[in-house]
Parts: sequence; structure tokens; C-alpha cells
Amino acid sequence: MIFLTLENGGLGVVCGEQVVDVAEASRTMGGERLPATLLELVEHCQGLLERVHGLAVEAAARGVAVRPLSEVEPQAPIPEPRRNIICVGKNYREHVNEVKATALGGSGLPEAPIFFTKATTAVLAPGRPIPAHRELTARLDHEAEVAIILGRGGRNIAPESAWEHVFGYTAINDVSARDLQAGHRQWFRGKSLDGTAPMGPVMVHRSAMPPLDELQVTCRVNGEERQRGNLAQLIFDVPTLIATLSAGMTLLPGDIIATGTPSGVGAGFDPPRFLAPGDLVEVEVTGVGVLANPVGD
Amino acid sequence: MIFLTLENGGLGVVCGEQVVDVAEASRTMGGERLPATLLELVEHCQGLLERVHGLAVEAAARGVAVRPLSEVEPQAPIPEPRRNIICVGKNYREHVNEVKATALGGSGLPEAPIFFTKATTAVLAPGRPIPAHRELTARLDHEAEVAIILGRGGRNIAPESAWEHVFGYTAINDVSARDLQAGHRQWFRGKSLDGTAPMGPVMVHRSAMPPLDELQVTCRVNGEERQRGNLAQLIFDVPTLIATLSAGMTLLPGDIIATGTPSGVGAGFDPPRFLAPGDLVEVEVTGVGVLANPVGD
Repeated sequence: MIFLTLENGGLGVVCGEQVVDVAEASRTMGGERLPATLLELVEHCQGLLERVHGLAVEAAARGVAVRPLSEVEPQAPIPEPRRNIICVGKNYREHVNEVKATALGGSGLPEAPIFFTKATTAVLAPGRPIPAHRELTARLDHEAEVAIILGRGGRNIAPESAWEHVFGYTAINDVSARDLQAGHRQWFRGKSLDGTAPMGPVMVHRSAMPPLDELQVTCRVNGEERQRGNLAQLIFDVPTLIATLSAGMTLLPGDIIATGTPSGVGAGFDPPRFLAPGDLVEVEVTGVGVLANPVGD
Repeated sequence: MIFLTLENGGLGVVCGEQVVDVAEASRTMGGERLPATLLELVEHCQGLLERVHGLAVEAAARGVAVRPLSEVEPQAPIPEPRRNIICVGKNYREHVNEVKATALGGSGLPEAPIFFTKATTAVLAPGRPIPAHRELTARLDHEAEVAIILGRGGRNIAPESAWEHVFGYTAINDVSARDLQAGHRQWFRGKSLDGTAPMGPVMVHRSAMPPLDELQVTCRVNGEERQRGNLAQLIFDVPTLIATLSAGMTLLPGDIIATGTPSGVGAGFDPPRFLAPGDLVEVEVTGVGVLANPVGD
């Protein structure tokens, strides 16, 4: 099952090349009340998942409340997260090596996951311009990542059962202002400028997740491939991240965990290659498709 | 005006030694619908502030929907923040000196505010035990702080108008697991264990804020004073914090900014003096009163 958030904020289900508007289908077909948003589905309504799926399949078959996927301009899957996005630093080996030489400190492989957060207001829809924030930063950089969305919360979650807490995954671009990230020592500020968390275009349910070594994430800038990795390469894998985070800290349904970025960020080049107005950044994740955002003025 | 969150989550107004239950007073006195919670008042209903105040004064005078303050066991003023609590590291000079010698890195006065966040799930009510998390940390520490709550959001807020965005202030104990804070490099993990953000017991409206050099914050452990400072001593003052944070990042009504802790934390002693089960930690802030929490098992 593949979900997206429609232009009006409502829940959409992708059926092949079509998108079903769940609220409209439910009204038209006289159905029960179903979750209004993707976040509501994730948070409260997992029991309704099969009914949403059934309704969408029937609506698509009858041509009710459907539009071609190509005509939809989705918002971010969760446009307004309930709390900050949890991110993981230095979680791919080659990326650890490339940032060693920079001002972002701390050499060597991390012995424990490096967690920080991005503000909720950083979330950006696919296609929308990433603000260049030129008055604040001269070192805007991309970080292509797979983000995991939790469907079940919990505390002290064992690694063995961690995947059962995952609702699905999406693509995220953890856009980073490297000068602010270093200048403020802790990373929150440099990671939280408005529009620096492009997300989407869809959220893939866990049932449709490919094997981890086939779950690729790539990043292209103006068509040139800059980053490539897969979820099997993580230093701290998803069960370890969930188990570590949830030790003593309650995780909530709807929590978003960005799992880290492979090597190839702009700061890793010599000389560095930062983003500039007019650049097109594409993050592609297997099953999710392409998250494309231009850099604005 | 002084507000608190009642046992049932509802909005309470402190009138002298009495607390008015706003929902009950409004029902009893046939009034209009008023904000149900303190967060709702902060977020949406600033125009209703005077009406809430008028209702509370009248209710207190008539003895309607009132209880003695001493009998109320308030929750945290905002038990479930809309997003992570924003915190500031090393914002008092003497505290910068005391942590120099520890493993928390980065020597010297910060050239820019050090921002990090605490998870929403860390919030704890006054009086409730702070979990010792003994299986996770051997270095649990207190940080007494004044927290500012925003009533108006905004972006690129000028320092000159920053105070107009402040709804009020409260006391917070930024309880920190020093070993996790250092071991995970970024501080989010060591700052976000469940129950490590005691807050309250009340929120004081900006109109009742004393001069900054009289707005004291102190911390006592088992009756012994450990920390003392005032809001005039901040390296980065409140307008600077708001202006810096809001540069390129949209702040929201209800955002909580913990302004930093004075010297005297347990990690600053030689040998260090960390918290242990059975300790009583009291954070006192002028106008807010005493935020007392024992350390649990």
C-alpha cells in the first residue's frame, strides 16, 4: 500500500497510476468515516488499514474519486509532524570518512548513534523551492535519506520486534546549513531552517518494503548523481535505532526517524560543492520515487 | 496573571491563594466558551485573555469554582507540547567555566547560542518522581532554568520586538544524563529520557514579569543550594535567543525556550555530585514558586 497527502491535506491512496481521494470515495460510495489525513491513519487507525485499502481498490475499479497520479501535486506525507523529526548523523561509513576533514567535528566511527532533531516547520512539499537563506548561510547542502515513520509507539522496544513498530517509509532531504551547523555547535539550528526538510512524494507501507539491500537512496544535483546507498549499509540499522531511542524514551505513533545519509554531500568535496539558487535536487528512494525540489532565491 | 494546568488538564487561574477552574466557572456563571487548556489559551486565544481574567476575578470574589492553591496538584503548564522543547546550552558564564573540564566538549564562551531540543515526552508534572533510569545512566544531573513560552509566532523577529512574542515564563529542570549526552555526541538523546523535563508549577504572564535582574532561578538538592542565577546574567539574552532562532525559522505560539542553566550542576563538582534515588530536587523561580521533584527508583 502506498499513501500520499493530497493538495487539500486529505488522505490519498495510490493504486497503480491512479490516486484515490479517500474522503471523496467514502462520501460517494456511502462508506463509513475513515481517517481524514495520513497522520491520522498512522496515529490512530491502524485497524482501519484494510478497510481503507478495500475502499481504494473498489473506488479505483469503479473510477470513483480517482485522478491520474501524474496530475496530483502531493504535500509532504506528514506536513505538520506532532513533534520534531529525529535524525541520525554519520550512519554510513563512507560519509563518516568524508566529513572527518570538515569542521563538523568528532572523528572516527560513532560508538553510539548520533541523534539530533529538525524543527517541524522545516517540512517542505515535493516540488516546492528550498529557500536558499542566502542572508544566513553560504553552505547549504543536501542529505538524501530514507525516513522511517512509526505506526506504534513504545518504550524499551527490543530490536527483534522493532520492525513491528514501523508503519512505513518515505524519502527525506535533510538539507543542512553547514556554517550554522558548525557555528552553533549543536546541530538543531543548522538543520531547522524553513523548507529544509523536503519529504515525500509518497509513504510506502511496510508491507510493500523491499529487502534492505534493494532499498536504495540516491541524490542527484542538476542530473548528476552525488549520493548512493542502501538501507543495508547503515552503521546502526533500523532496529538498533528504534531500540536505542526507545530505551527510557517513549516513542509515539507518527514519529519520523531519518536514518542517515550516504557519502557524497557537498561538504565532502574538495573544494566543497554547496547548493545554489536554481539547482535542482532530486532524492530518489526505491518504491517512493523521486523527491525533486529546486533551490529558490 | 498566573495560570496553571489542573489535574484534569483544564485551565486554572491563580487568584491570590485561590485557584479558579475556568471551565467550571464558565459553566456555573453562564459565560461564553473559553479556552479549555492553557496551551489553547497561549496558541489561539490571546484576545480572550482579559475575559478569562475577568471571569476568574469574579468567580474568586463569589467563591465559585475555586479551591485553595495549596490543595491543587497541577500538571506541567503544557503537559504535551506541540513540538520539542528548545534549549540553550552554556548560557551563563560561570556554567561555561565549570563544564570546560568535563567530557561535554567545546571550550570557551560560545560565539553563538547552542540550541538543542528535548523530546515532548520528557515533560513531568511538579511533585512527580524523576525516573532514575539507572539501567541507562550513572550520571543524572539537574539544570534549573527559566523557560519562556511564546504567545505569538513569527520569523525574522527583531530583538526590539521579541518580548512582544512572549506569553509568559515558567520553571523547568533540564534533567540531563551526562553519560548519554557525551556518548551520543549530539545532546538530544541524553536530554530526552522520560520524565527529565519537570515543568511548573505555574506559568506567569509577561505582564507580571519582574525586572530581569530580580528574576532569579535557584536549585536546591536535599535542601542544599546548588545553583543561583538571574535572567539578567544570560550570555545571550531572551531577545537575542528569539531573534537568532527565528532568523529563517518560523517560531510558533506555544513554543517553549529553556534559557540555560547557571553554574552549580552536579557535573561541575570535583568529584561530581550526580542525582540518586531519594534525592529531592527543587527549582525555584521568582513568581513561579518551587518546582519540587524527588528522584525515583
